[in-house]
Amino acid sequence: MSGNTFGTLFRVTTFGESHGPALGVVIDGVPAQLDFDIDFIQSELDRRKPGQSAMTTARKEGDKVQILSGVFENKTTGTALAMVIFNGDQHSRDYSNIAETYRCGHADFTYDMKYGFRDYRGGGRSSGRETAARVAAGAVAKMILKQYGVSVTAGAISVGKVAGKKIDLTAPEKNIVRAFDGDMAEAMVKEVESARADGDSVGGVVGCFAHNVPAGLGEPVFDKLDALIAQAILSLGSVKGIEFGNGFEAAALRGSENNDEFLAGGKLATNRCGGVLGGISTGSTLEFRIAVKPTPSVSIAQKTVNKALEETVLEIKGRHDPCIVPRIVPVVEAMTSIVLCDLILRAKSDRMS
Amino acid sequence: MSGNTFGTLFRVTTFGESHGPALGVVIDGVPAQLDFDIDFIQSELDRRKPGQSAMTTARKEGDKVQILSGVFENKTTGTALAMVIFNGDQHSRDYSNIAETYRCGHADFTYDMKYGFRDYRGGGRSSGRETAARVAAGAVAKMILKQYGVSVTAGAISVGKVAGKKIDLTAPEKNIVRAFDGDMAEAMVKEVESARADGDSVGGVVGCFAHNVPAGLGEPVFDKLDALIAQAILSLGSVKGIEFGNGFEAAALRGSENNDEFLAGGKLATNRCGGVLGGISTGSTLEFRIAVKPTPSVSIAQKTVNKALEETVLEIKGRHDPCIVPRIVPVVEAMTSIVLCDLILRAKSDRMS
Amino acid sequence: MSGNTFGTLFRVTTFGESHGPALGVVIDGVPAQLDFDIDFIQSELDRRKPGQSAMTTARKEGDKVQILSGVFENKTTGTALAMVIFNGDQHSRDYSNIAETYRCGHADFTYDMKYGFRDYRGGGRSSGRETAARVAAGAVAKMILKQYGVSVTAGAISVGKVAGKKIDLTAPEKNIVRAFDGDMAEAMVKEVESARADGDSVGGVVGCFAHNVPAGLGEPVFDKLDALIAQAILSLGSVKGIEFGNGFEAAALRGSENNDEFLAGGKLATNRCGGVLGGISTGSTLEFRIAVKPTPSVSIAQKTVNKALEETVLEIKGRHDPCIVPRIVPVVEAMTSIVLCDLILRAKSDRMS
Amino acid sequence: MSGNTFGTLFRVTTFGESHGPALGVVIDGVPAQLDFDIDFIQSELDRRKPGQSAMTTARKEGDKVQILSGVFENKTTGTALAMVIFNGDQHSRDYSNIAETYRCGHADFTYDMKYGFRDYRGGGRSSGRETAARVAAGAVAKMILKQYGVSVTAGAISVGKVAGKKIDLTAPEKNIVRAFDGDMAEAMVKEVESARADGDSVGGVVGCFAHNVPAGLGEPVFDKLDALIAQAILSLGSVKGIEFGNGFEAAALRGSENNDEFLAGGKLATNRCGGVLGGISTGSTLEFRIAVKPTPSVSIAQKTVNKALEETVLEIKGRHDPCIVPRIVPVVEAMTSIVLCDLILRAKSDRMS
Repeated sequence: MSGNTFGTLFRVTTFGESHGPALGVVIDGVPAQLDFDIDFIQSELDRRKPGQSAMTTARKEGDKVQILSGVFENKTTGTALAMVIFNGDQHSRDYSNIAETYRCGHADFTYDMKYGFRDYRGGGRSSGRETAARVAAGAVAKMILKQYGVSVTAGAISVGKVAGKKIDLTAPEKNIVRAFDGDMAEAMVKEVESARADGDSVGGVVGCFAHNVPAGLGEPVFDKLDALIAQAILSLGSVKGIEFGNGFEAAALRGSENNDEFLAGGKLATNRCGGVLGGISTGSTLEFRIAVKPTPSVSIAQKTVNKALEETVLEIKGRHDPCIVPRIVPVVEAMTSIVLCDLILRAKSDRMS
Repeated sequence: MSGNTFGTLFRVTTFGESHGPALGVVIDGVPAQLDFDIDFIQSELDRRKPGQSAMTTARKEGDKVQILSGVFENKTTGTALAMVIFNGDQHSRDYSNIAETYRCGHADFTYDMKYGFRDYRGGGRSSGRETAARVAAGAVAKMILKQYGVSVTAGAISVGKVAGKKIDLTAPEKNIVRAFDGDMAEAMVKEVESARADGDSVGGVVGCFAHNVPAGLGEPVFDKLDALIAQAILSLGSVKGIEFGNGFEAAALRGSENNDEFLAGGKLATNRCGGVLGGISTGSTLEFRIAVKPTPSVSIAQKTVNKALEETVLEIKGRHDPCIVPRIVPVVEAMTSIVLCDLILRAKSDRMS
Repeated sequence: MSGNTFGTLFRVTTFGESHGPALGVVIDGVPAQLDFDIDFIQSELDRRKPGQSAMTTARKEGDKVQILSGVFENKTTGTALAMVIFNGDQHSRDYSNIAETYRCGHADFTYDMKYGFRDYRGGGRSSGRETAARVAAGAVAKMILKQYGVSVTAGAISVGKVAGKKIDLTAPEKNIVRAFDGDMAEAMVKEVESARADGDSVGGVVGCFAHNVPAGLGEPVFDKLDALIAQAILSLGSVKGIEFGNGFEAAALRGSENNDEFLAGGKLATNRCGGVLGGISTGSTLEFRIAVKPTPSVSIAQKTVNKALEETVLEIKGRHDPCIVPRIVPVVEAMTSIVLCDLILRAKSDRMS
Repeated sequence: MSGNTFGTLFRVTTFGESHGPALGVVIDGVPAQLDFDIDFIQSELDRRKPGQSAMTTARKEGDKVQILSGVFENKTTGTALAMVIFNGDQHSRDYSNIAETYRCGHADFTYDMKYGFRDYRGGGRSSGRETAARVAAGAVAKMILKQYGVSVTAGAISVGKVAGKKIDLTAPEKNIVRAFDGDMAEAMVKEVESARADGDSVGGVVGCFAHNVPAGLGEPVFDKLDALIAQAILSLGSVKGIEFGNGFEAAALRGSENNDEFLAGGKLATNRCGGVLGGISTGSTLEFRIAVKPTPSVSIAQKTVNKALEETVLEIKGRHDPCIVPRIVPVVEAMTSIVLCDLILRAKSDRMS
């Protein structure tokens, strides 16, 4: 598993398992002299942590971040910036049934196929808990982006079968499902509660908007803006799809309907392309949507196999998010911010002089 | 632009512009002693080249590949493998209108924003012609995958508003739109012809299936199988979305509906996950679909701006594909093969012993 | 500063400053199922830590390593392995003179030129203390190499003007200067004591031998075995030169004198090449020597400048190693082991089948 | 062999074998809008090519460079820059004795151990001819460095047992051994002629000086300036050692003798450190020396083994350089320039604003 680093100049390396001693991240390439705001990092982690609301698992995780290196006198030094979040008490829970049985929809089986071995305590490295480290890194990226005027906002477009009807960028932080359409939030909450009552779960569609992205970001031909965003977002375990601008709808349109015309001054009249042409930002808002699958941990019995690959039946107990959508929102913002920050640094050598 | 390399152990670096002297690719990391079949590479390039059928642009490009290094006595040597495709006569065409005007839906504007400069002859590096180099590299990847029994097949699922109803893996090479549903191919051809008659273009949805992918491929947490496929595919200029397995549909399902149960022996009863769990292959077929936008080159007049960012109107002349779907099919296979090949090599160090 | 990661498949990322909260390392790419021996890691750190003998600084550093991730039930999991060493009490020492003045021979000036800012507490990131993290990573590499029968031994060849006359691989751990020639150890100790008495310091030449290195390691043309060793070793702050086999002496020899002849079976009759030909290991012992400069921290007054670049004079106070040679020995072994481990993993994809 | 790429932002990938169709290089990351001077590239290649003087092999190689991509209207476009040098007629020479026998001091044996196979025609990829591609890339790096006022000059310090006594930077291009001490050039030529007459060869020491290198280049802790130079230079097949500034001599000095004092304004009074402290450039001249081994191709009979590892004797026929020193000079400049260019681009993100 040599895939724990992401980025070229703003390089993020995460480590840690859900039930190990700690999670953490090293960021290599943070420019020196950035004013460092640890409270902002903590506030971003708080947006992701469990137990925030009725929507999320009742597990309490403190998720207190500590800075181990790279900051001196409240400024970044230019050296590797390391942050760590120690995990709380890992009560000696009984994992014996999960240790021997592969949970449906989880990475238990594939980790074992790959490594011949797995950390069965709560998913180990494959746990969603790993994303806490990404959020901490994303918060640093956001601090840098702020200097360039760039902001990134994600939120829920739909939850289960309930879809919002509008995009209000101020809405997500005001309702517990983090919906862009505040008027539909209550219906979305009910959709989640109904699934939970059935011992089941629901997914949703999350949208992300990055404003004030300068034109010219993205490195053809493989590290295009949309390509790197796609890698960053699909590297989240519960994401099954992504689309930019018109996305899948574009497939059924004609070119004359799908093209964005230019206006005097170089602005685009529309943003069907989602802010990216030829893999490079246009200067318009970067827009994409992602498909979040329903949490695989359901207490409804499902057929599976044990380590000997014999059939068995598993009912997952314990406290799980019936819907991951509200908590994935800050993670999507974090990954998007990391990509944009890396590309801003890379763009510094686009031209001579 | 330092994004012209893709992969970790099977590293592909492409170069070349649509109207420059040549396109080419260097592959670093091809294992030694692979039986090398240059005819196969040429046959893959022939599947992508223009002028194959009524569906594609009438431009003729020979696209003859030459091997410059890395092969000796019909075997790979283990050294950098370089291939080049010289471009044919670049007639001294008049590009003056395009040189000064940004085409809608193309990368003209964004390249200029990034580099303060662009190669206006047919798009230069941003031209779809760049993918010829990818197809050559993909053909080498396919040769390696064949040794592992892995095969990759892509085809059209829909073209414009005409959708196929079945997936027949043998169908795409038998019809000129490369549809998986041979019965719908004629209707799809009409969809394209109708757009062309209007001076317009259409997009479509392409599916890709990789069979016999061994369980255990993909490198958490950032270089997951689906994450790297997403980067690889979204790095194609005309792709606006990707989804794996149930994809966006999963967002509206419950966990109990979306999970795949395991059968005795470790096979999955269904493949809603598209062959990947936690970013690692399950041993089932890798399945994904992508949204291909309609070709932006349309002869319908559209508003745009010139280099001075003043409004103007552009009608694109010349021979262009009214639908890129049939020609993107081999490119999607190539990129998928490159990712799988790289991950097979990376998996060699998963475990001690 | 985006240079904190080293390696391709066995990827080592270090972080931490001499007077920050902690030092640490993340290793990405440790194969799963390696039996993990934390006591061995600690014992390697103990070889490097200060205060071991009269030869080294009197500062006491506990250097207790903690594992944060990547190990479960005493085996590596295949996921990112993180280790951390918390720094002990940082007494509120007075750094005011150093904070404003650049020490000769140190990185103070260059860090400030680069970042416009520096962590002046004991050198911050540029401190030799950073190498503790490398030693921890090297210990993991050594565990892997052991499975392949490879061993790495470094030791002192000369200290100041006192040179050893023989290479006894068992000697270095038996004398406090870690000399290969135990009979000369006492004279070397006197050389150091004499410098210390004068408020001065001495350097030395360190040799390194890697036994049982399989033939075939090294990745032409840039990641050759000797090239990567050279990078690894020159990345140590006090190293000013490296030579393999005959080294600089080869420059004055004739080809017929410098070539190694082959013996039946493929062994080399001599090892003038130092175990590497064309950048690839021959199967003979890898041999190199390095020049270690005298510690720049001397209490003899030297002319320097302050932050305003005005002339001043500095006498460095405090406890410093009068000779870094004994403590660099385990660091050289660590860096060599990291390179060999990485190349062993990379060599797994040299050939098909 | 996945080591054919070097650099982080100015990324050089070379390909080609001595007797294959062509050698070439792709440079990814050349900033756009650089005035491109193909004649300069050719002139650099001409400095390296064989047959220039009595000092070098009589083989004639045209080494005409062609640009395949990345340049438009005499400016770089920002896209991947590819250059190719087609090899001349490869007369169907008889390689049968070399094909079955490993030459002493060459990479024949190690390539076969690694790949189970080798291209025996003139060394294939391990041939010094590969460095032509590096010289072409280095010429592009030099064009960029020129914009920053940086110049790089290498030359011979000694040839065999004849050492120069002074460093005259204008001398090397005025004598056929490229000696820094023009007065000693004739003696050096005689040293080479004497070895040639005996069917033997000689090595030498080459020095390299980079002027006007700005302070602040180098990326701690692994990609330090000296560490990357060391990798770059040791990746040349005939180099067996490198030292910076005082180098190995420093090992015998005291700290007070080896430190460079600072002068008002921040200049160093001396340059014992060779222009680098803590892996970062000081603003003084970067200075290093390298050990070049005598060419292993000698016509004196030497014992070796054949592919069956049975003893045999080999006398190498044909035209070979009796001393590689004059021709390695432009290669050393090229590799140094590539490192400096990469680090200049990387330094652009050292600090916020």
